[in-house]
Amino acid sequence: MPQQPLDLTPLFEPAAVAVVGASRSQAKVGGMLLANLLGAGYRGRVHPVNPEAALQGKDIMDLPAVASSAELPDGLDLAVLCLPREQVLGEMRILAEKGVRAAIVLAAGFRETGRLGFEAEMELKRIATKAGMILLGPNSLGLISTSCGLNASFAIGQPKPGGVAFFSQSGAMCVAVLDWAMGLNMGFSRFVSLGNKALLNESAVLRYLGDDPATKVILGYCESVEDGGEFMAAAAEVSSRKPVLMLKAGSTAAGARAVSAHTGAISGSPAAYRAAFRQSGVLQVAESAQLFGLAQAFATQPLPGGSGLAILTNSGGPGILAADACAGSSLTLPRPSTETLARLTEILPSFASAYNPVDILGDAGPERYRAALTALLADTQTHAVLVLLTPTAQAQAEATARTIIEAANGPENAGPDGKPKPVAACFMGREAVRAGRELLQAANIPCYDFPEAAVEALDALYVHFRRTQKATPPATSCDSAIIPEGDSVLEPTVGVRGCEAPWDEEARFIVEAAKTRGLIEIIGVEALEAAHAAGLPVLTTGLARTSDEAVRLAGEIGLPVSLHLATPELGPAAGAWSGAKTGEDQKLAVRFARLDDEEAVRQAFLTLTSRAARLRPEAYVTGCLVQAATGLSGEGGFELVVGFTRDPQFGPLLSFGMAGVSSELLGDVSHRLAPLTPEDARHMLREVRFYPLLRGARGGAVVSLAELERLLLAVSRLALRLPMLAGAEFSPVLAGPGGVHVAGARLTLR
Amino acid sequence: MPQQPLDLTPLFEPAAVAVVGASRSQAKVGGMLLANLLGAGYRGRVHPVNPEAALQGKDIMDLPAVASSAELPDGLDLAVLCLPREQVLGEMRILAEKGVRAAIVLAAGFRETGRLGFEAEMELKRIATKAGMILLGPNSLGLISTSCGLNASFAIGQPKPGGVAFFSQSGAMCVAVLDWAMGLNMGFSRFVSLGNKALLNESAVLRYLGDDPATKVILGYCESVEDGGEFMAAAAEVSSRKPVLMLKAGSTAAGARAVSAHTGAISGSPAAYRAAFRQSGVLQVAESAQLFGLAQAFATQPLPGGSGLAILTNSGGPGILAADACAGSSLTLPRPSTETLARLTEILPSFASAYNPVDILGDAGPERYRAALTALLADTQTHAVLVLLTPTAQAQAEATARTIIEAANGPENAGPDGKPKPVAACFMGREAVRAGRELLQAANIPCYDFPEAAVEALDALYVHFRRTQKATPPATSCDSAIIPEGDSVLEPTVGVRGCEAPWDEEARFIVEAAKTRGLIEIIGVEALEAAHAAGLPVLTTGLARTSDEAVRLAGEIGLPVSLHLATPELGPAAGAWSGAKTGEDQKLAVRFARLDDEEAVRQAFLTLTSRAARLRPEAYVTGCLVQAATGLSGEGGFELVVGFTRDPQFGPLLSFGMAGVSSELLGDVSHRLAPLTPEDARHMLREVRFYPLLRGARGGAVVSLAELERLLLAVSRLALRLPMLAGAEFSPVLAGPGGVHVAGARLTLR
Repeated sequence: MPQQPLDLTPLFEPAAVAVVGASRSQAKVGGMLLANLLGAGYRGRVHPVNPEAALQGKDIMDLPAVASSAELPDGLDLAVLCLPREQVLGEMRILAEKGVRAAIVLAAGFRETGRLGFEAEMELKRIATKAGMILLGPNSLGLISTSCGLNASFAIGQPKPGGVAFFSQSGAMCVAVLDWAMGLNMGFSRFVSLGNKALLNESAVLRYLGDDPATKVILGYCESVEDGGEFMAAAAEVSSRKPVLMLKAGSTAAGARAVSAHTGAISGSPAAYRAAFRQSGVLQVAESAQLFGLAQAFATQPLPGGSGLAILTNSGGPGILAADACAGSSLTLPRPSTETLARLTEILPSFASAYNPVDILGDAGPERYRAALTALLADTQTHAVLVLLTPTAQAQAEATARTIIEAANGPENAGPDGKPKPVAACFMGREAVRAGRELLQAANIPCYDFPEAAVEALDALYVHFRRTQKATPPATSCDSAIIPEGDSVLEPTVGVRGCEAPWDEEARFIVEAAKTRGLIEIIGVEALEAAHAAGLPVLTTGLARTSDEAVRLAGEIGLPVSLHLATPELGPAAGAWSGAKTGEDQKLAVRFARLDDEEAVRQAFLTLTSRAARLRPEAYVTGCLVQAATGLSGEGGFELVVGFTRDPQFGPLLSFGMAGVSSELLGDVSHRLAPLTPEDARHMLREVRFYPLLRGARGGAVVSLAELERLLLAVSRLALRLPMLAGAEFSPVLAGPGGVHVAGARLTLR
Repeated sequence: MPQQPLDLTPLFEPAAVAVVGASRSQAKVGGMLLANLLGAGYRGRVHPVNPEAALQGKDIMDLPAVASSAELPDGLDLAVLCLPREQVLGEMRILAEKGVRAAIVLAAGFRETGRLGFEAEMELKRIATKAGMILLGPNSLGLISTSCGLNASFAIGQPKPGGVAFFSQSGAMCVAVLDWAMGLNMGFSRFVSLGNKALLNESAVLRYLGDDPATKVILGYCESVEDGGEFMAAAAEVSSRKPVLMLKAGSTAAGARAVSAHTGAISGSPAAYRAAFRQSGVLQVAESAQLFGLAQAFATQPLPGGSGLAILTNSGGPGILAADACAGSSLTLPRPSTETLARLTEILPSFASAYNPVDILGDAGPERYRAALTALLADTQTHAVLVLLTPTAQAQAEATARTIIEAANGPENAGPDGKPKPVAACFMGREAVRAGRELLQAANIPCYDFPEAAVEALDALYVHFRRTQKATPPATSCDSAIIPEGDSVLEPTVGVRGCEAPWDEEARFIVEAAKTRGLIEIIGVEALEAAHAAGLPVLTTGLARTSDEAVRLAGEIGLPVSLHLATPELGPAAGAWSGAKTGEDQKLAVRFARLDDEEAVRQAFLTLTSRAARLRPEAYVTGCLVQAATGLSGEGGFELVVGFTRDPQFGPLLSFGMAGVSSELLGDVSHRLAPLTPEDARHMLREVRFYPLLRGARGGAVVSLAELERLLLAVSRLALRLPMLAGAEFSPVLAGPGGVHVAGARLTLR
């Protein structure tokens, strides 16, 4: 895909449209499309192409029929091909010759049907590319662009204009979303069915929508993205200006398998997609039901400037359910300020609760709602308000809706900075509150069916606000994402180096040499040496093949040392001492953690190797690793795991977790895609649930976050600089008051 | 509450009803209620009591007015009091004298308004109790009983008859649920607004609904339950016969605080409620939106006999979203059998996917749906089917709905055992599928808006099926919940004892003695002794005040031993060696893990005590604990934590987790209420996510589950036998190939 934003104006705002294969019959795609086009009030010229009708001199829906594409005016903006697959390629060639600037191909039967279809699609792409033509589809449902009254789709129904843009890889989701949205009275700016994405993909559409003044919020549905890097670049650029919400089908392993079966595409891993969305500012929507609720909030409400949510309710139960929903969110329920409390006490009857949730009781009429809402909007602790209404006998849903609209959209909703606060409503029930709900929706106050959905939407607004806040992160030791080479500020010290270290080609030599030897992975001392060369803070380690060598190495490294059996089966990072209490450990000791003198080193070497020979005669034992005993986790530190795998779609996917049960079974691992920014590294550390331990919580050792961040950045650089690596695992990484040290490494070759 | 089920027939199926405070005006509660009563087609006699109307000889809604309650016939089944609070007590006294068997009090202004209201409510309760009268309310919205056409509520709308019963503590939720349900066309058997629950509470209503032939599924909303034990007994009894679904407001800490503010009641902890629901077979519903979806499935569908879900769809995207939703559920997506695959290949066009999800393509008409559905229902791998339909141009929602109904409700839906399989549908969109959806609902096939909601509902059916399966659990060592005293089958061995051990009153003596001394907690050797006496497998431990004593104790216990600094601040279970790498540890060593000879023991004692004196002169050090070094976690085991707290509502709440990060930060802890059954103990072990480690996964040591289950049962017994304990924590519990041993204990006194 071109890096320059493609000018998609001919597609989205065409001055004239040709409908190739237009039909009088609305049972046919060419008829449905033409009817939609004319029904939506398109103001440009429409040219229906239909040889038969033209031959008979007949009109099609009151428009003179054109006999063939060749007879269309030159340089037309848009042609929609409503033709069977067999006719598409021929017609596209003619349209290309006529200089048509954009084409939509509706026919299915291309890539999704196998080899022949794939080849036809490639040819389609070639024709368009050569002519510089924009191509939407094939297998597209078409496109709707309400700003110019263009409905070039064969979907049923005309959405009303509004600020929401929707694009989708799946035509089925287009149909469903359009139908749902009309039920919700949601307005759209653009509606795009991407189809097979032969040429135009989500990235190009995102960039267009980012610049589109008619679009306030962008919704997308995808099963896979075409080009991970380009998608992230486009999404990051656009999401800094408008919210981008995406529903990713196949966000679990089971779903991803279904995606493969459906599209045949090798999709990235769910973790990689989550990281890609997260790093490019896209809000990933968990369930299809949320798409609409979130879109409504984003399309109509300002972002909250903080986490404080005030809940205003006329009944206890729904207020509590809303409070429950807050617990799992990033929102908080601040106590109203003393001033607000005084004001509420003045307004409310004595049994009302002025705290948060503010329960103004079942007999509350519009006036009480209005007074309480005004007081809460004026409170600096309040960043957003959720108004709940249950249709009690005394509740007046319509009148209350009107006062909510007045308060939310009026001058009283302006903080000291003049910025309005988001207001959402939840009117419980159906019939009894329908009119009130419709009033609110029409006045751009989102109104939800259930308290939990309302909290979810307000939470999404705040999450987006936090992400878009470009607060300077507290200083980390690395100042840019990828450290320029030879730009070292610190003299690297043996054992602890950061990503400031100049890139040492030694790392590449080690990996290439291993590849030459036909190895599929590098472990032990060799792996640690490569890591050291790549700037990782590696514990000084040597391989001793005899007890004499062990003693000598211990002397060179400096006592105390630790000793580990060196065997491909049981070496460091082979699981045997990755922090878990392993079954191997008890059958066969594989390490001595801390040896203080030479004699102890000698004895330990003999013990380890002779036990191994006795208990595991089949094991290939190369000796023992002698390692500096600095940073032992027994001294009050942690055993961490840092690594990367290479995602087919998004490239190196870094992971950070604690060795053992927390990451392996509980999934407490954070992921980011390389290249990592210092801010990404900061967030990776803070995202894991064990983070408080690293800060000394519950008796944990205080660990240098700066050193951990440097380590993550160094691994990111390693992943980018050595594409011949399929992945790497650094485990254990010993982190404690004595610093951060890589004690084991395993590099996997491609 | 009485343990015998109260006969609530006079309330739910009254032969005659008096409306005290009946009114001609539907703006008044007495008018709304009477209008509802007459509008619902109640077939019994109705007596409107209205002194003024009677005086004037006027009818009320065509019924002759009664001048006062005193003039009502004797022994009337039900009186509904539509009176202001001030008149309620006086009128209740009269009704009691007249032998009225049940009363509903609608007025608010009782307990929820403070001291005076509380006293009035107590008086109300006394009157009813003394007269043996059933009392619903006060602060109730009333009651609906469709089987006899009784609508004794002032809620708006008449629900249609059906198999769903709903009871709610919150009147607001009644109003909302009724309104929603009418929108969904959901039928109800009973609809009960419990109000303040002065007398009639959820337990009594549950028992009635359990026996009620008109009720197929029971839904409840609660903020708190009145009597934890009675609730669990009632729920367990009823849920073994019908599904009970409950939405608990205040299921998070934030929500629980809101409950307190709302009801003033001291509610149990969210964890205790979850355990109570779990143990009594109640399905806890997470969000209000789910209540309806789940209720529809339970009210209409059979339970699936296994986890296998077949997804049938006419478009890829929604199928993938359904597959994604399965990932977080207990359902699986089995590959169709070879036979079914052959059948599907025969039926389907070549581009269709016969795997699961089965994608029959966008041009699928009713016939293709029917054929594929029939094939899937015949597959023994399939235990439930979800049919997805997207309104493509070729989709025929109504006709397809009809074939789904025929297949699901017809003879082809019967496995080899003749049992039908549950079928649910999701028709995507609104308008385009409305008619099809309504056909399905009317034919008792639940049809959902979104694929995720459909999967959620089918998952709930399967979860309920599994729980109701009374499969005999694999033999555990204890055969009943609370082991009868003196019924030991195993000679208890020192160090490892199970709950078969006879109850030793020594445990009680230790705890009572500590209480007498004014202690608030028992730690160190004393706590371990109490645990030992209570039948827990405790490591032999002694307190040494001098190094000589340490050596002597080591000799008695048998080398090797471990040594721990004994101080209330840093003793075992005081956090210092609870498996975490503590900050304390590095500043001040508090233990030596394994000492092999006498000299090592002596040196260790001196080192620990002198370091403590130097680094923590303020600490009160009583010496060192000398403990058998059996079962050290370093030898390939785990450090676990078992304990209990006492929940105000439900009594002893047991917990089981791994020491350190997994339980403390990641919340990987299982909870159950005492008394524990052996099956509860089994599930507690299997519910934690680290369970696979205990079975040897990822190099974990294989631990005796039987011993762990015995330990849990012993802690359950301890909690029940020693009510003077507020709680207990046994940490660490060392579990490895050498057995399960409690190495630290802390008992908290009330």
